[in-house]
Amino acid sequence: MRRTVAEHQAAVAGLLQAGGGTRRAAEVLALRDAPGRALAEDVKAPVNLPPFDNAQMDGYAVHAADLAGTAPLTVADPIPAGIAPPPLAPGTAAPIMTGAMLPAGAAAVVPIERADPDRFYSDAERADGTATVRLPGGIDAGLFVRRAGSDLAQGGTALRAGALLGAAQLGLLAACGVGEVRVAPRFRVLLLSTGNEVTEPGADLAPGRIYDANTTLLEAALREAGADVTRHRLLGDDPAVLREDLATITAGSTDLVLSTGGISQGAYEVVKQALADSRVEFSSVALQPGGPQAHGTLAGVPFLGFPGNPVSAIVSFEMFLRPALSRVTGVPAPRPVLGAVLAEGVDSPPAKHQVRRGIYREGRVSLVGGPESHLLHALAAANCLVHLPEGVASLPAGSRVEVTLIGPIPVEPLASGAPIAVYRAASGGMDSAERTPT
Amino acid sequence: MRRTVAEHQAAVAGLLQAGGGTRRAAEVLALRDAPGRALAEDVKAPVNLPPFDNAQMDGYAVHAADLAGTAPLTVADPIPAGIAPPPLAPGTAAPIMTGAMLPAGAAAVVPIERADPDRFYSDAERADGTATVRLPGGIDAGLFVRRAGSDLAQGGTALRAGALLGAAQLGLLAACGVGEVRVAPRFRVLLLSTGNEVTEPGADLAPGRIYDANTTLLEAALREAGADVTRHRLLGDDPAVLREDLATITAGSTDLVLSTGGISQGAYEVVKQALADSRVEFSSVALQPGGPQAHGTLAGVPFLGFPGNPVSAIVSFEMFLRPALSRVTGVPAPRPVLGAVLAEGVDSPPAKHQVRRGIYREGRVSLVGGPESHLLHALAAANCLVHLPEGVASLPAGSRVEVTLIGPIPVEPLASGAPIAVYRAASGGMDSAERTPT
Repeated sequence: MRRTVAEHQAAVAGLLQAGGGTRRAAEVLALRDAPGRALAEDVKAPVNLPPFDNAQMDGYAVHAADLAGTAPLTVADPIPAGIAPPPLAPGTAAPIMTGAMLPAGAAAVVPIERADPDRFYSDAERADGTATVRLPGGIDAGLFVRRAGSDLAQGGTALRAGALLGAAQLGLLAACGVGEVRVAPRFRVLLLSTGNEVTEPGADLAPGRIYDANTTLLEAALREAGADVTRHRLLGDDPAVLREDLATITAGSTDLVLSTGGISQGAYEVVKQALADSRVEFSSVALQPGGPQAHGTLAGVPFLGFPGNPVSAIVSFEMFLRPALSRVTGVPAPRPVLGAVLAEGVDSPPAKHQVRRGIYREGRVSLVGGPESHLLHALAAANCLVHLPEGVASLPAGSRVEVTLIGPIPVEPLASGAPIAVYRAASGGMDSAERTPT
Repeated sequence: MRRTVAEHQAAVAGLLQAGGGTRRAAEVLALRDAPGRALAEDVKAPVNLPPFDNAQMDGYAVHAADLAGTAPLTVADPIPAGIAPPPLAPGTAAPIMTGAMLPAGAAAVVPIERADPDRFYSDAERADGTATVRLPGGIDAGLFVRRAGSDLAQGGTALRAGALLGAAQLGLLAACGVGEVRVAPRFRVLLLSTGNEVTEPGADLAPGRIYDANTTLLEAALREAGADVTRHRLLGDDPAVLREDLATITAGSTDLVLSTGGISQGAYEVVKQALADSRVEFSSVALQPGGPQAHGTLAGVPFLGFPGNPVSAIVSFEMFLRPALSRVTGVPAPRPVLGAVLAEGVDSPPAKHQVRRGIYREGRVSLVGGPESHLLHALAAANCLVHLPEGVASLPAGSRVEVTLIGPIPVEPLASGAPIAVYRAASGGMDSAERTPT
């Protein structure tokens, strides 16, 4: 059947959702093993953050009774961070360091630079107990005090189920004293590369054969997207061999079977032939490259079939599988989609959403390679996919397009002597509404 | 000394460059172990890509002598992908599948849908050798032929030294038959968290003490940025203990020593005290949070000291260390910097580059939490750093700012029933020149 890109995106996401790969038992991991994983449950804070009222500045802790006045205050023992200080008596002020616990009785912290003298006394100067300090008076209660629980109250939700654990999220859990977390299981993919022409890299290449790029390409893409590739295999073009391999699939060990090749209109389409009587549907999606697509289930396990050309396979991954993984598993983070100005004119088949490869920088995008789906060298030089939606027949240079960022924006190497810059990926002039690709 | 953000960025990048952490011997890795690494040397293609002239479509391979005419051609044996076909005789046309090797003598491929009949004969129909096909005539030589080496010629540079190896780059190497690569060594960081108040997560928390967030936060950030944390340690506030630890550092085993805390103006600044007579400089950078900074060398090893509050530490990492790693090591990919519209008004100290935390979506950014540097819960909810450059005292709602994307742009979970969308990170109206943050 024929489908739009959006229809097939919805079908793939629905397939993964129904597959239930994310409903397996959660894993418990130490924080250092959890980066890039999604939380399986809400985490509540077992402590207040901060755990106690503390000083936001180096200065003097002032008693509640002494906020208003300017009379000299006797200097008490200093309060470093990390101790539980004795209560503060009225008429005294205690030197206090940033992060140190506010003593009982204290209501505010006056920064050292507003005190007179505006430097801390040495231990020797304080030794006889007669040192005094004058503060400006009229001090608001709470000045430069970080209240216990002001960042996060004990029992409050630190992170919600589904949260993707990056540095900040893991740092928050550490600050709460949480040493391990329950995370969703990794999504497990069985990867099958088909075709009699395909040879393992490193082996000798017989005439008429090519090296298998798809296993490496898709395994790297899936792992970068937080999935495990549990098994991969090169298969020829014999439907009986493929059927035999697929018969071993069980729902318990795999969340997705992903094949490349063999789903088109040719005379030797191994996946199509092997799955002719299965619950797998073969579609023609209005996408170039990546038009032929297969999806369905095998023994209850979600199945996707991508076309065999490497560029078609990675475009299929970026357009269908990666967004579905983001939405269904919470991992990986969605790709940024940016507006950009085309550096050159381009033609596109109006009946299809064409995806070209480009190099994006400073709000402009230059195309690399042509539209053909075998141009892997051009793909490797690209940092974005350039979207030429359905209905577009040609665009002149200077037109605005959307690009999906899939690689790094180039920076000058340091040796060039260029100043260090924050490179911006932004460009101007596009409205900011979300859209489905059309 | 006082510095601008750009001055300190240049100093940190220069420090890492001079440190020579990237000049160690390269490692040789199998492709599946190489994602996220940078190539240590140029890789030349040992084969042509594609390796041989092949069909771009399913159709008929046509002899050079038969391109012009429309006379019926005898149908030869079909050519599947993966074999070396026999030469094509004039007056015959061979059914050929996408990716299959063009036979000697053939000059073009006519797609099956332009042939008459516009379907392939079955084996039975071809059995007596009398099947013929009519082609449209006036066929250009090279039509739907992918020429050997047209993507990348044998001996050409597949990837340059320094290239960051993602899925596409690894896929290209696999397609070239390259099974392993020489990559730059990982950058090795020794991480020290200082302060008497700091307690390991999971242990009991004594009054006045807090859990150590910085080790978890910075280890996750460094690993996500492609660096190894070779050792980390919690240290108290005793300069003698710190000096003892630092004395064990040797240039052979560490590329950077990174400490948090103890570099400010208080009375107990352990890093400052321990390194008073060293080659480490203590600066006040016009940045909030993250103003106090230390940098220099210890026993010839680059040293950076970040402030101790977790938000200050991660802002220091994102503003100074991560960009320097990108430029000096080629790993990690630089963060996207986007233009955004402020959802609310904001104040900022005009003498400093203030970095706030925000949630960016659809071209707009909302601030989360205040400017204070202890607000780790707010940081964990943010997906970007919001830049309020030096000279800005306040900005009204609707103002344009730059944001550095540090986390995922939120998407609706599938259960909401919202249509699958490509979320765009673009927004409009900013010029697209690069700038140093000022």
